[in-house]
Amino acid sequence: MSSTHKAVRHDVMRAGNLAVVLGEIDRSGPLSRAALAERTGLTKTTVSKLVGDLIDGGMVVETGAVRDGERGRPGVAVRIHGGRVAALGLEVNIDYLAGCVVDLTRTVRLRRRLPADNRTAPPAEVLTRLGELGTALVREAAALGLAVTGAQLAIPGPIDPASAVVHHAPNLGWRDVPVADLLDVPVPVRVDNEANLAALGELWFGAGTALGDFLHVSGEIGIGAGVVVGGRLFRGAHGFAGEFGHVVVVPDGVPCHCGGRGCLERYAGQDVLLGAAPDLATLLDRLATGDPAATAACRSAGEALGVALTSAVHLLDPDTIVLGGVFAPLFAWLSKPVADAMASRLRRMRGTAVPNLIASQVGPDAATLGAAGSVIMRVIADPAAFLAETLSA
Amino acid sequence: MSSTHKAVRHDVMRAGNLAVVLGEIDRSGPLSRAALAERTGLTKTTVSKLVGDLIDGGMVVETGAVRDGERGRPGVAVRIHGGRVAALGLEVNIDYLAGCVVDLTRTVRLRRRLPADNRTAPPAEVLTRLGELGTALVREAAALGLAVTGAQLAIPGPIDPASAVVHHAPNLGWRDVPVADLLDVPVPVRVDNEANLAALGELWFGAGTALGDFLHVSGEIGIGAGVVVGGRLFRGAHGFAGEFGHVVVVPDGVPCHCGGRGCLERYAGQDVLLGAAPDLATLLDRLATGDPAATAACRSAGEALGVALTSAVHLLDPDTIVLGGVFAPLFAWLSKPVADAMASRLRRMRGTAVPNLIASQVGPDAATLGAAGSVIMRVIADPAAFLAETLSA
Repeated sequence: MSSTHKAVRHDVMRAGNLAVVLGEIDRSGPLSRAALAERTGLTKTTVSKLVGDLIDGGMVVETGAVRDGERGRPGVAVRIHGGRVAALGLEVNIDYLAGCVVDLTRTVRLRRRLPADNRTAPPAEVLTRLGELGTALVREAAALGLAVTGAQLAIPGPIDPASAVVHHAPNLGWRDVPVADLLDVPVPVRVDNEANLAALGELWFGAGTALGDFLHVSGEIGIGAGVVVGGRLFRGAHGFAGEFGHVVVVPDGVPCHCGGRGCLERYAGQDVLLGAAPDLATLLDRLATGDPAATAACRSAGEALGVALTSAVHLLDPDTIVLGGVFAPLFAWLSKPVADAMASRLRRMRGTAVPNLIASQVGPDAATLGAAGSVIMRVIADPAAFLAETLSA
Repeated sequence: MSSTHKAVRHDVMRAGNLAVVLGEIDRSGPLSRAALAERTGLTKTTVSKLVGDLIDGGMVVETGAVRDGERGRPGVAVRIHGGRVAALGLEVNIDYLAGCVVDLTRTVRLRRRLPADNRTAPPAEVLTRLGELGTALVREAAALGLAVTGAQLAIPGPIDPASAVVHHAPNLGWRDVPVADLLDVPVPVRVDNEANLAALGELWFGAGTALGDFLHVSGEIGIGAGVVVGGRLFRGAHGFAGEFGHVVVVPDGVPCHCGGRGCLERYAGQDVLLGAAPDLATLLDRLATGDPAATAACRSAGEALGVALTSAVHLLDPDTIVLGGVFAPLFAWLSKPVADAMASRLRRMRGTAVPNLIASQVGPDAATLGAAGSVIMRVIADPAAFLAETLSA
């Protein structure tokens, strides 16, 4: 074996061991070096060297003395450091732009949301404005001592994350838009579907693993869903799984921007709900006072949602359904028609195996948070790649 | 470490190694013992001992001399033995009972199918008759030198494989039937959903891995689907995923046995198709001569199927859709309306990522074959458990 080959092997092994140690600190920290050696099966010398590298890279930090699990002696422990490494989450949606900065402990450090009519503006203009938002957030993060290591952008439409091209986002009116090329931020950017990222936002920043396998429905002007199975996104063969807004609820129904007819989002999307009020705040006010038009709008949207969810439950069989986006604040008015439509169709065949229905615990920033969280998860999964970038920068 | 503990560790290691060696022979055989040692990283002595155990158990057999991949010397190779270990697949469907015996090489050795009206007979009577069929097949297999090691039963309804209780099979009219208790065959029986097993039948005995991720639709009196992702069944949180027949195609449509309304199987199930002819053979004859009622029945069933598949594709995003059961012989008449309904709804949004639509390559025995194949796959995955049973018997 040549010495080059040996060096390559050593680097691969070190990268794997760094990930094992950081993963253990992330899941179970604070932990002493001795406890880390016991849990990982690595020698104390190796652990000390790796922890040193992680401290130098600003990813972990020594904390006060803790009891060592094995021997009962107090020792210095290490935990994930929230003061240095951060990620940028960005979102283009139909009627707003949003961004956030999350640190390595998954603490949200900065949030921004700008109203915008992204249906009328050309994609390049929308993405220029978002680039300014993202660049400002990176600068503000730096002022807090945070180095933003990467960004992820949420887009409301099916996207192939490998190419970062939006083939067709019907509600934005975008076709074959090379999103990553048009977005100018000072860090590398990946792109993913908004509904997928909102589901991950719920998993990492909301109700989390208590949900079991879940379907997270993002109610916006379009309706998307993220399918989380065993703690991971179910993406399908082309990355397009979970396009819930285009589940057919009325075969010969209203034409949809997607080219189909009778798609769910024509019966339960935000535009339909806001047929009963000029904006969400007013709709909530009118619902609170029992306004009949507002109540009827929620009931009929809830019924359509319940029919589409019935189909989704028959196909996907989740433990839990999470209603997010605008459906979360409207949950008190939507949940009964949704649950009734589902129960009447599912109860007889499935017994007690009818999924729980809950409102999102994260709120309107779910996709932005999921986007930033994805970057953080990649850093935690491969700290060696991050450290190499930091050293070469 | 005590000697008992050591013995336990040794057994666990031997079981793992047996599975590794048999798996390698199954995937890549015939292979010489030397090639097996190279591929598995085990010593030649260990491999020889394990291969000896597998030969004694009738699971592998020596074949003629093959060239040893590494050294070019001819040597004796081993391959999976089809002459000894076998599995029984059984199926209760609405209008027939079926069984098959498959050997360890996945060759089908025996097949039986009995017409039956299982909607009118009580479950105990249906399962008694199936028990007789299964017992006869085990006896006939023995006459061929085959030892049937286990059975798997396919049932048209959602089932929790752990309890082997059918909660509600609406098309059979079964409720809370303890299937495994009522079925008397001389081997252990597991139970699973017919549509899941038909998908596995397609994977193992039909078009196979060339399909990528696929949705296999079983058109019977009910319509079920099996979702195969990465070569494995996607079962959902309660094992009920793929209940495709109850995807809603008309929200206020025809009442369904399941308690819902407007379910796909009320518009595209075998009973609806056979509204245009007394039986499948006659329907095929009439279609061949262009009979308008028969053609119209296929067209409207195909349109409903296309609408439901559109919803399924939006949620699951498979590479391929396989039409099985009665849909396979009717494929020539169903495929156009199905493909048209899907294309008009999917093409604009998904570009070229519209799944291929093909007819099942397996035919009406898909579920029975998938059932027997599941038993074989369990034996291949854990040969030590099988050998332990054989020795204690």
